[in-house]
Amino acid sequence: MRSSWAIGDVDLYLEPGPVRGRRVGLERALRAAVVDGRLAPGTRLPSSRTLAVDLAMARNTVAEAYAQLVAEGYLTAHRGAGTVVAERPADPVPVPVYARASTPRFDLRPGRPDLSAFPRARWAAAQRRALAAAGSDAFWPAADPRGRIELRERLAEYLGRARGVRTRADRIVVCAGYTQALAVLGHALAARGARRIALEDPGLPFLREIVARTGLGVDSLAVDEHGARIGGDADAIVLTPANQSPLGLTLHPDRRAAALRWAAETGGVVIEDDYDGEFRYDRHPVGALQGLGADHVVYAGSASKMLSPGLRLGWLALPPHLLDDVLAVLKRPELAVGTLEQLTLAEFMAAGDLDRHVRRSRRVYRDRRDRLVAALAREVPRLRVRGVAAGLQILLELPPDGPDEEEAVAYLARRGVAVHRLGWYRHDRSDDRAPGLVVGYAAPSGHAFAGTLDALVTGLAELYGGTSPSGGWGRAYLGGAAPEAGPPAAPTRQGDQTRP
Amino acid sequence: MRSSWAIGDVDLYLEPGPVRGRRVGLERALRAAVVDGRLAPGTRLPSSRTLAVDLAMARNTVAEAYAQLVAEGYLTAHRGAGTVVAERPADPVPVPVYARASTPRFDLRPGRPDLSAFPRARWAAAQRRALAAAGSDAFWPAADPRGRIELRERLAEYLGRARGVRTRADRIVVCAGYTQALAVLGHALAARGARRIALEDPGLPFLREIVARTGLGVDSLAVDEHGARIGGDADAIVLTPANQSPLGLTLHPDRRAAALRWAAETGGVVIEDDYDGEFRYDRHPVGALQGLGADHVVYAGSASKMLSPGLRLGWLALPPHLLDDVLAVLKRPELAVGTLEQLTLAEFMAAGDLDRHVRRSRRVYRDRRDRLVAALAREVPRLRVRGVAAGLQILLELPPDGPDEEEAVAYLARRGVAVHRLGWYRHDRSDDRAPGLVVGYAAPSGHAFAGTLDALVTGLAELYGGTSPSGGWGRAYLGGAAPEAGPPAAPTRQGDQTRP
Repeated sequence: MRSSWAIGDVDLYLEPGPVRGRRVGLERALRAAVVDGRLAPGTRLPSSRTLAVDLAMARNTVAEAYAQLVAEGYLTAHRGAGTVVAERPADPVPVPVYARASTPRFDLRPGRPDLSAFPRARWAAAQRRALAAAGSDAFWPAADPRGRIELRERLAEYLGRARGVRTRADRIVVCAGYTQALAVLGHALAARGARRIALEDPGLPFLREIVARTGLGVDSLAVDEHGARIGGDADAIVLTPANQSPLGLTLHPDRRAAALRWAAETGGVVIEDDYDGEFRYDRHPVGALQGLGADHVVYAGSASKMLSPGLRLGWLALPPHLLDDVLAVLKRPELAVGTLEQLTLAEFMAAGDLDRHVRRSRRVYRDRRDRLVAALAREVPRLRVRGVAAGLQILLELPPDGPDEEEAVAYLARRGVAVHRLGWYRHDRSDDRAPGLVVGYAAPSGHAFAGTLDALVTGLAELYGGTSPSGGWGRAYLGGAAPEAGPPAAPTRQGDQTRP
Repeated sequence: MRSSWAIGDVDLYLEPGPVRGRRVGLERALRAAVVDGRLAPGTRLPSSRTLAVDLAMARNTVAEAYAQLVAEGYLTAHRGAGTVVAERPADPVPVPVYARASTPRFDLRPGRPDLSAFPRARWAAAQRRALAAAGSDAFWPAADPRGRIELRERLAEYLGRARGVRTRADRIVVCAGYTQALAVLGHALAARGARRIALEDPGLPFLREIVARTGLGVDSLAVDEHGARIGGDADAIVLTPANQSPLGLTLHPDRRAAALRWAAETGGVVIEDDYDGEFRYDRHPVGALQGLGADHVVYAGSASKMLSPGLRLGWLALPPHLLDDVLAVLKRPELAVGTLEQLTLAEFMAAGDLDRHVRRSRRVYRDRRDRLVAALAREVPRLRVRGVAAGLQILLELPPDGPDEEEAVAYLARRGVAVHRLGWYRHDRSDDRAPGLVVGYAAPSGHAFAGTLDALVTGLAELYGGTSPSGGWGRAYLGGAAPEAGPPAAPTRQGDQTRP
């Protein structure tokens, strides 16, 4: 078989692709020529007989290749007119499904702040001030792999004041969100000989994947009514002490002490994932565990819940003995974080806009939580609300005799209501666990919340009884379409991901 | 030895650290307590004798630990007053040297655009428009792992018009700069079974490191007067066709054809690193190689040279058959790129501000290059300027009988002039190569350029003869201090890095 030929004055090559074979090679060559534009729309191709002779191929092979490309939209076969390059070549790449995913009508996915409340004007003003004040070096990646000093100084002040973190600007590093920060920590710990990191179970599955991608083993910390059970022989443990994700527990004081003791005795590292510690509604936020053991605990925070996960800004407050290893990783140019957003957040904080926005959000979320809890107690008394008055979500315990998690999620989804099922967060799937739904109440915009709450409560009342006109979950449930199988979509950038 | 004890009401733990031993354990415990603030400044410690008894340690061990911490600044020993926690504990973490690095007085480091010319007002206006126009989803990471469609549509139009790239918005992905894009490509190619990627030698060393971190082998493509020699059995080759970095050659047409033929025949991937293709001064920019083979060539570009490397915005135009593998990598949450900067650049481009800024920069850089070349020809005729009239840098060939690269760089550095030596870009160090200096002329601000040019030319005239009062490099050089050893600092975020 010849490896190249010409159509008109256009040279074509037969390429051995991932899949070999004459027909595939011919198809790829023609596809490439059409996509490149080397074969212009309207160009008439030689007959399959002619090309077969030309290429010393079986005529069938050529005819099959033509047919395939006609089917894919690269070519058109006009009766009598032969085979012609199509006018508008169809995209040979299927648009991935996650690009098509749309926001649910009633969005109660956990971990999503009210993005409609993002302080646009104040953010724009902060960036304008940052641009006006900055030297030319602001347009070069931060000289210090820790990130811009302007932001780190603000963070040191804020974290000490708002979260009881004991740190200083030179022990803080800025990352592209908590997810990158966790990956950086994984690489840094691996570089100093760490083998395994333990994460809470239940917890966010994609955090386990991030750790695994750093080459470290991933262990589990079981969670009971006091929070994570401390122990195991991992080199580091990741905790959510202020508000266990997704169970909504505050780590018991004994467990906090146990974590510090474990670190002190084993030389292990505690990673404190303080993803929404600012949002506590029944008391002052519980101070960061890091404040009790700044030499053992890595404090991790981000702008994702306070402001927007689209900013990709997170930070670590590091124990001195970890700093050099983390900086060695952060010096990798492919991990550089944009400087303008860092300087903008610094200006935003300096103006008091962050405190203002968090205070306002806390009021809004507290009110939403109260309304949600009250409505559920009134309309669906069989469902128990678990978790402390904090954060952006509640855990709903499902009765053992009602529809299970998957059925409930699917039933609500058909009514446009999006929630997560607790099982999705479980690594250990052994089934003696209480089923539950994780319901985020922060995502809807202010004007949409009432309707969203109503849609949820109505759907749950139909499933789990209560005072709904349908008269109890049984009838309503049996009346509904067959429940869709399977868990909610795995987390993706646009939505289900609780903490991107 | 007991593992815990108390000072006042403060519990302390003796920790087995990376280094074991009683003294070290005690030091770390006290250091941690001081750094944590558990032991407040002014707190008086028990005498070494008392603590030694308390811990069943030799008194000397305790005394040595105290002495060490006094030396480190954690404790102070007042005559008579015993050992007290120091008022202002010194930072136990040495400030890394790259954080101290400062901008050289005469900055001629290659690859740096004139950051003082960053269009601050227009950028701020673009972000204000973007914030006003965006829906709430702008504050969530892009739904599509490719990045925001608004930017990808602008890029498709711009790249087709300005660089002859044949692509569409759905084949473009946005990354955090070229460095992240290269890492993403490495992971994607590795996932489809690739083993090795070949990069040009000479080239930027840290690009080899980025590829190596993805687990792929790194091969070299030798570069001759026609550009990179195409061949080898790597699965992908990275080329700088428009302007070889750092030699300043345009890839010869035969080599361009050879690269496409290599890809077509082997199924290999060509990665076109078009880092400064917009800047050509003697003719229209050479169109992207990708335009000739959009099914084999990954086009890579970024905002780093056109606008600012601090933005961390780069992009790939992908062949259809690579798209799914690249998107699978880009779905990793730790790689998410901030949305606001994407939308801001889209607005900036929509307003024609990018074209305007590139046109203006092209005029400025062309003028600077002309002045530099003329001054060198006049003052240091022994030095040959290599490379096409393009980009942000020139290559200066050094005479074999004069001071070598290291001597020249060190000599200029002592006069505040920062340039790179060619050898730093070489992977194959075999020594039969022409020595050279790589001189970037874009970095200085407009008002600083004349003085910077003068400092360079004067220093070079002293080194390599010409009309300088010192009368030739010999005397001047021997008169100077001994040349500092070693290459310029390895690339870091703040400076030496040619393309972060």
